[in-house]
Amino acid sequence: MLESKFDVMLYVALCGSSEMFIESPRYTERFGSIRMNQVQKVVALDSGLKSELPPHGAMGVIKIDEETIKYYEDRMAIVIPVKDEKLKLFEGVVSGVPHDCLAIVVSNSQIKKVDRFRMEGDALEQLCRFTFRQALIAHQKDPAIAKAAMEAGYDDLLGEDGLVRNGKSEAMVIGLLMAKAAGKEYVGFVDADNYFPGAVLEYVRNYAAGFSLAQSPYSMVRILWQYKPKISGGLYFRKWGRVSEITNKYLNQLMSAKTGFETEVVRTGNAGEHAMSMKLAEVLPYASGYAVEPQELVFMFEGFGGILPSKDRKVMEQGIDIFQIETRNPHLHEEKGDAHLQNMLLSAMSTIYHSPLCDEEVKKTVLAELVNQGVLQEGETPPPVHINAPLKTKKYDELVRAIRDDFDKYQVLH
Amino acid sequence: MLESKFDVMLYVALCGSSEMFIESPRYTERFGSIRMNQVQKVVALDSGLKSELPPHGAMGVIKIDEETIKYYEDRMAIVIPVKDEKLKLFEGVVSGVPHDCLAIVVSNSQIKKVDRFRMEGDALEQLCRFTFRQALIAHQKDPAIAKAAMEAGYDDLLGEDGLVRNGKSEAMVIGLLMAKAAGKEYVGFVDADNYFPGAVLEYVRNYAAGFSLAQSPYSMVRILWQYKPKISGGLYFRKWGRVSEITNKYLNQLMSAKTGFETEVVRTGNAGEHAMSMKLAEVLPYASGYAVEPQELVFMFEGFGGILPSKDRKVMEQGIDIFQIETRNPHLHEEKGDAHLQNMLLSAMSTIYHSPLCDEEVKKTVLAELVNQGVLQEGETPPPVHINAPLKTKKYDELVRAIRDDFDKYQVLH
Repeated sequence: MLESKFDVMLYVALCGSSEMFIESPRYTERFGSIRMNQVQKVVALDSGLKSELPPHGAMGVIKIDEETIKYYEDRMAIVIPVKDEKLKLFEGVVSGVPHDCLAIVVSNSQIKKVDRFRMEGDALEQLCRFTFRQALIAHQKDPAIAKAAMEAGYDDLLGEDGLVRNGKSEAMVIGLLMAKAAGKEYVGFVDADNYFPGAVLEYVRNYAAGFSLAQSPYSMVRILWQYKPKISGGLYFRKWGRVSEITNKYLNQLMSAKTGFETEVVRTGNAGEHAMSMKLAEVLPYASGYAVEPQELVFMFEGFGGILPSKDRKVMEQGIDIFQIETRNPHLHEEKGDAHLQNMLLSAMSTIYHSPLCDEEVKKTVLAELVNQGVLQEGETPPPVHINAPLKTKKYDELVRAIRDDFDKYQVLH
Repeated sequence: MLESKFDVMLYVALCGSSEMFIESPRYTERFGSIRMNQVQKVVALDSGLKSELPPHGAMGVIKIDEETIKYYEDRMAIVIPVKDEKLKLFEGVVSGVPHDCLAIVVSNSQIKKVDRFRMEGDALEQLCRFTFRQALIAHQKDPAIAKAAMEAGYDDLLGEDGLVRNGKSEAMVIGLLMAKAAGKEYVGFVDADNYFPGAVLEYVRNYAAGFSLAQSPYSMVRILWQYKPKISGGLYFRKWGRVSEITNKYLNQLMSAKTGFETEVVRTGNAGEHAMSMKLAEVLPYASGYAVEPQELVFMFEGFGGILPSKDRKVMEQGIDIFQIETRNPHLHEEKGDAHLQNMLLSAMSTIYHSPLCDEEVKKTVLAELVNQGVLQEGETPPPVHINAPLKTKKYDELVRAIRDDFDKYQVLH
């Protein structure tokens, strides 16, 4: 009996397939036009056998074939914001990005004294030359980008010195513009401080898997890390987990206060690793600093949650699919210390507190939580965060054209 | 210009390819019939683009396509020796084994009080049911296996109680027999205490990549971990690295004392993660305990290094290809503490010390090193290690047949 199974395996392996397995979403919460799926776990990283598995979830598991993954990878740019990361980590992260994705590095690393930006460019070029791929790299403070933004009326992005502001959010926007200029239809974000190239590979494959499940052209995939506290600095991860938990709790409250039904569907409020269809990316605003990821959800709840008047009829009609995918690999990155965790919590809660969706009752609990966590004093309120307006509302096409005109400069291989 | 590149990428992505890139071996040391390749690094985990890269190494990089990898994976069993590992780690490791490989778990976990063996079987069954794959699991102390070994005259494997001895090496032998019984042509070993399923996936892909480069049917792939001391318990990894360094140094000396040319080619003397063609696996002996991995090399040097009379004409004619592949992912596993490192060093050095290849001069330096490391006292010599004879010298076919007859019991899905 077994022998015949082996024969089947032998036969199918020659087809060179290499799918992955993922849980089907157990439940989908609907807020207006938003379809927010419960967390789905990755079950296996590779599933070479073309078995008789029903394609969509009768068994609770979905098989996503390699062609599908490659289809999305080919249409995807992976934006890697960098700021003075260790070069070895940066190289590892880039080496984990699947070959078919366009890697876009947006660096805010130092140029003076030690030219770290140059070192990043050199490392990227060597890797690309070895592996026959193209990549783009730009410096966040490149005056040409600031000039293009100014001419397109996109002043939000600029600081007082007339250059693009510091921050990951602004790097993400530059990355989005470059991805658009390169004709990409999906864009994913990956942090540059990840120790495991294999984890980066999985994030991107999860993005592709999520997109393949979307019904709407407006879709988002957010990664939930599986982390193993014991080996990876228990204390740090516990605190991070706590910040994340609080953010998720109040994001869920923001919705359930309106719908009248409690929910715990949001599990990825602070997900730095996330990806969007370009169509969705174009209509979202991007909050500065640590607020960017939760603010994306808050904005979608506001704009398309069916409670406030919608800002975009097309999106309302088609809906937004949000997937939350829990990785198989644990997450291990450079420890940035605890200081930024307080900031992360404050920023995230600020986006909730200042949302027009946030009623007095939720506001009160948010303030109590922040006082309780020692982030605010009694009587203080969270300062509002800077928000970069959606790209679609500006002279978007001109801005994209201006970026594309400079592509020669950004390409690592000539 | 860029636009056209994107067009090419769009076209090829539809083919669903997903190769990997690996350095071509820079240099191959030849000892008699052994072709020992210098360490090759994995350059990228995925390389989807069917570029114009010359297939073999003109650029110093070899592209190995997905069909090739799957071809070898389909013919490969992955043996996972387990002994009371955390279940979460075990599950993660199994989930990282590519689907086309046959996973074979050989467990020496406790059965009494808490039946951990049962829990491992249950976890394995669930994973297999979800992902439509077959796997085998056996307990190292299964009396049926001991009986089959005894009847085939393979007493080496048995302890005084008539059951299979404790130890990873003996688990490996059981795994080999089961792989052979399942008709597999390659067998790889993966430890069950790895935190990163993605790293396991890479090991197996590296095995496949190595086999695809072999000229001889007798081939071996040994993994060199890329590890990042800073995050993963610096002290432990430094000590492990030191043990590994010493083992490699004397393995290299064993050869260079005979050839008259110094070499540093051996970098993977203690590589627990390694794989062999079944043809090679059948003719190697397996030393007990921590000696197993270095002893494999020592035995090959003895048997096929061209200095001592050879034991197998067929192997001498075809030669042995040994590949040492450095992973892209770092290695992170459960810390077993330092105690076993001393043992590991002593066992490894013992295999060198007791080799007929080892002349008086090398013996002297080995002893000095062990005294220097505080592992032996002045005047002591390393105790010889127990060695399980090569499978081919016993009533091999009968033994394999006996194992196969019990397959129903070992299969997790029925």
